[in-house]
Amino acid sequence: MQTLDIIARIHTDFPAKFGIPRQSGLIDALKSTIVFEEAYRDASALRGIEGYSHLWLIWQFSESVTTRFSPTVKPPRLGGNRRVGVFATRSPFRPNPLGLSCVRLEGVELSTPRGPVLHVAGADLLDGTPIYDIKPYLPYADCHPDAVGGFTDAIDYPRLKVDFPQALLNPIPPDKRDALMEVLAQDPRPGYRHAGDARRYGVQFAGFDVRFVVEGDVLKVVDVEAL
Amino acid sequence: MQTLDIIARIHTDFPAKFGIPRQSGLIDALKSTIVFEEAYRDASALRGIEGYSHLWLIWQFSESVTTRFSPTVKPPRLGGNRRVGVFATRSPFRPNPLGLSCVRLEGVELSTPRGPVLHVAGADLLDGTPIYDIKPYLPYADCHPDAVGGFTDAIDYPRLKVDFPQALLNPIPPDKRDALMEVLAQDPRPGYRHAGDARRYGVQFAGFDVRFVVEGDVLKVVDVEAL
Repeated sequence: MQTLDIIARIHTDFPAKFGIPRQSGLIDALKSTIVFEEAYRDASALRGIEGYSHLWLIWQFSESVTTRFSPTVKPPRLGGNRRVGVFATRSPFRPNPLGLSCVRLEGVELSTPRGPVLHVAGADLLDGTPIYDIKPYLPYADCHPDAVGGFTDAIDYPRLKVDFPQALLNPIPPDKRDALMEVLAQDPRPGYRHAGDARRYGVQFAGFDVRFVVEGDVLKVVDVEAL
Repeated sequence: MQTLDIIARIHTDFPAKFGIPRQSGLIDALKSTIVFEEAYRDASALRGIEGYSHLWLIWQFSESVTTRFSPTVKPPRLGGNRRVGVFATRSPFRPNPLGLSCVRLEGVELSTPRGPVLHVAGADLLDGTPIYDIKPYLPYADCHPDAVGGFTDAIDYPRLKVDFPQALLNPIPPDKRDALMEVLAQDPRPGYRHAGDARRYGVQFAGFDVRFVVEGDVLKVVDVEAL
């Protein structure tokens, strides 16, 4: 039995799962920082990493540790009622709770009060997620433009128009607004909602609870509260 | 501390490390099979996987478990004398011994005497390597044609001409020859050899020890022995 050591944690604007994009790389405006655990705060471990544009993170699905092997899952994006094999999905409910995400490397700070820090864009991770490994993205081995994406190829992801009244937008820090608008435009609701859904939803982002309703293809923000 | 369970093992033609391509996907003629451990022999866990062309494997660097964190490594392809940060490499000598490889999915057999089996191409893994996770390759999230590959972009990998005398080739099963020729053409020698290297090397492949010398850009096979 292999045991894993947490080497770092990622700090993102998502304190809760709802609203996190379904995969990494879909919202480049999302900015995160990777802070190493004390035992791994060594700037030399990052020597040469600045030459790569993208990194792989292998991380822990910390909120979905399962105790029993369940061979099938119901992906929310398939409506939540179709079962597919767990190895045909990136679902968190898998035998070993390992997540895999590609992020864009924006910057490396070798010396901060918290040790060396990586600044990355596009992460689809909960704030504080434990990281087990960081590897460079190697285009010659990892990039397959001819790859076929199974049932995910057939899913349509319509964008929403976002109606965010200026008075509600004002408290959001300007450098967080692009990412938040994009989170909303990509429709954070689960796939298994009903047509004519009149529910009020809330995305927690960057210290705010952003509440909205959706009518047709318009997402209207109705309330913003500091968390 | 997270513990991981082995879900499967991959069966490849490489009983030893020497000769394994430096990354996955470089030799499509390499064919492997993934056989699940008994607790995970459930065909429904693969439902839908046949729709994907490529898979990610997260696996154990079973021959290189380290006990102490070493922040830098000397990649053989950099000549073996230049140190770079471990997180800027895919080196096996990392805090958690997790490997990441993309393979092409060639076929799925749901019912064999060993349970469901995946047939994959291009794996850069040692025979018997433990697998921790299998995930679909999602082109929209995993394919980054614009990615920059750090110091690996600058490395030149000259191909060798392979001189494999017919009498020595005869014992190799015909369906293994293309892969073996390509393993040799990609120059399996470590990067830190000297110019004018007259050593005799041996690649173990598909049950044979294939011995060769290299003169200039010609790799000449000098002996083939059954293992």
